[in-house]
Amino acid sequence: MLSYKEILQLFEERLSAYSYGEQPQRLYEPIEYIMSLGGKRLRPVLLLTANQMCQGNIEEAMPAAMAIESFHNFTLLHDDIMDKSEMRRGKPTVNTKWNDNIAILAGDTLLAKAYEMMNNLPAKRLKESLELFTKTAVEVCEGQQYDMDFETATEVSIEEYCKMIRLKTAVLIAASLKMGALIAGTTKEEQNKFYKLGEEIGMAFQIKDDSLDVFGQQAAFGKETGLDIFTDKKTFIYLNAFEMANFETKKALKEAFSLQDKTRKIKEVTALYHKIGIKEEADKRILFHHNAASQILSSINCSQESKDILKKIIHTLIDREV
Amino acid sequence: MLSYKEILQLFEERLSAYSYGEQPQRLYEPIEYIMSLGGKRLRPVLLLTANQMCQGNIEEAMPAAMAIESFHNFTLLHDDIMDKSEMRRGKPTVNTKWNDNIAILAGDTLLAKAYEMMNNLPAKRLKESLELFTKTAVEVCEGQQYDMDFETATEVSIEEYCKMIRLKTAVLIAASLKMGALIAGTTKEEQNKFYKLGEEIGMAFQIKDDSLDVFGQQAAFGKETGLDIFTDKKTFIYLNAFEMANFETKKALKEAFSLQDKTRKIKEVTALYHKIGIKEEADKRILFHHNAASQILSSINCSQESKDILKKIIHTLIDREV
Repeated sequence: MLSYKEILQLFEERLSAYSYGEQPQRLYEPIEYIMSLGGKRLRPVLLLTANQMCQGNIEEAMPAAMAIESFHNFTLLHDDIMDKSEMRRGKPTVNTKWNDNIAILAGDTLLAKAYEMMNNLPAKRLKESLELFTKTAVEVCEGQQYDMDFETATEVSIEEYCKMIRLKTAVLIAASLKMGALIAGTTKEEQNKFYKLGEEIGMAFQIKDDSLDVFGQQAAFGKETGLDIFTDKKTFIYLNAFEMANFETKKALKEAFSLQDKTRKIKEVTALYHKIGIKEEADKRILFHHNAASQILSSINCSQESKDILKKIIHTLIDREV
Repeated sequence: MLSYKEILQLFEERLSAYSYGEQPQRLYEPIEYIMSLGGKRLRPVLLLTANQMCQGNIEEAMPAAMAIESFHNFTLLHDDIMDKSEMRRGKPTVNTKWNDNIAILAGDTLLAKAYEMMNNLPAKRLKESLELFTKTAVEVCEGQQYDMDFETATEVSIEEYCKMIRLKTAVLIAASLKMGALIAGTTKEEQNKFYKLGEEIGMAFQIKDDSLDVFGQQAAFGKETGLDIFTDKKTFIYLNAFEMANFETKKALKEAFSLQDKTRKIKEVTALYHKIGIKEEADKRILFHHNAASQILSSINCSQESKDILKKIIHTLIDREV
């Protein structure tokens, strides 16, 4: 049985041994650059962990783990263009370090490379795995479109927001877990448990992300705190704050959001968020999804030892302060 | 045996019966828009024609035909962003009618949808078809990167240019023909003939395209003539003109290219091109590739009747005046 640390290390080894390509240099350099920026490698680790829980052969699942991580980085490349993001994991984004066109094409290539990796899966699992992978890819794009639509929408309900983050974030985490189980050859019923479990983790993960943007420890976060406030982003925090605030506080919130000065705007909105008690509301919602995940996990048919590894990962994700 | 017209009609029917998706609207509308702009449907028709030549079941090959056309349109969506193109097939491009972000995401989704279609191929052909499809997708991206690199390169050799158009244009045409043969279950040797044949057609097709930009019939062309001249694009025409020109004409060419006035620039460069005899040089090169294609075609083991359909398509492509 491999520990979380051993799974992560194995994945990192395989990834750094893999070459995406050499020429043209201005295509493959940005790809190597973003892939080497690190990150949690959450999705491949979840995939390999689920595979181990279902007694799969980790080598057979590795191509899918590589593909999922490549796919995730493709989405980052294109999201950073769309959001005009300048920093990612404390380093300049590809669209900043190079330019938008380079980032578009590097992303396209990374997506094609993800499919190249998928094609190395065992033949008997290929069609089903590809179906899951592609369905997820399309849903992630749909989620990103809803996210962009929300930028200009005057009214976004919390329900609509949850649908968006389910598509944009949760389904890829869900698909990672399910794919690991699928490749191990477990039953459809068990596979679907992994999927639902992943959806719950994904929802909790994204709400935590929204919360950290406001209440996180700036220094260790690798990006500025309050950026969502500054850009009026309709996050879980934003939408629930307006929902929960009384007449007066809502008016104060609107005023604070209309401030031009960045530092003052972030400071005043954050103070109002504290007054409304929105951090506690977010924590409550995170706990709700965490509990749902734990319940599904307990129903999965596998050794307690292998379950505990996943439990630990979930705990790390949800209780992180950065 | 289906005629060229019948193959095209069958494909168009299937394509218009297919729905890429509904919601979010701002994701699927641009996809439906570009797919409905028409075009020659060259790649799927070639795929289905090759499939028929190898006595395949056209219904089995249809998912690949749909995938290839979707892939091709994905490249158009992203190329139009990178080239800042405003018009395509006489209509505004997606990046103009909507915006760059919409075009990026519509392209991404179209690429994923292409893989969704591929996954409907007969199981026994899936792995090989995907391998060809993905290898080609990556090469097309590489070709596009070389094309972008050439924009700022001071020196581009004709050899480098040919390598670029092989990747950017020819390999997709080659892959279309090979895929049709592959799905029909023909031998590797025959498949490779189709691939090489497609490369030759692709090279001829692109050189013809470069030539039509200067010497084409503007009205029927659906885009302006001389745009490559105006943007100093290093095409087959441009590179060979500088290669073939004597000292004096080269100097005049440089001067003409430095003109600011669009109409005058196009007029003067075109006059010099005529003087150099570059249209004849392009025609010679097109004929060279056409002959090579014909020779390979004659060596392919299939009925003359089915061959004649492909012959006619090639002829139409290469002798077109628009």
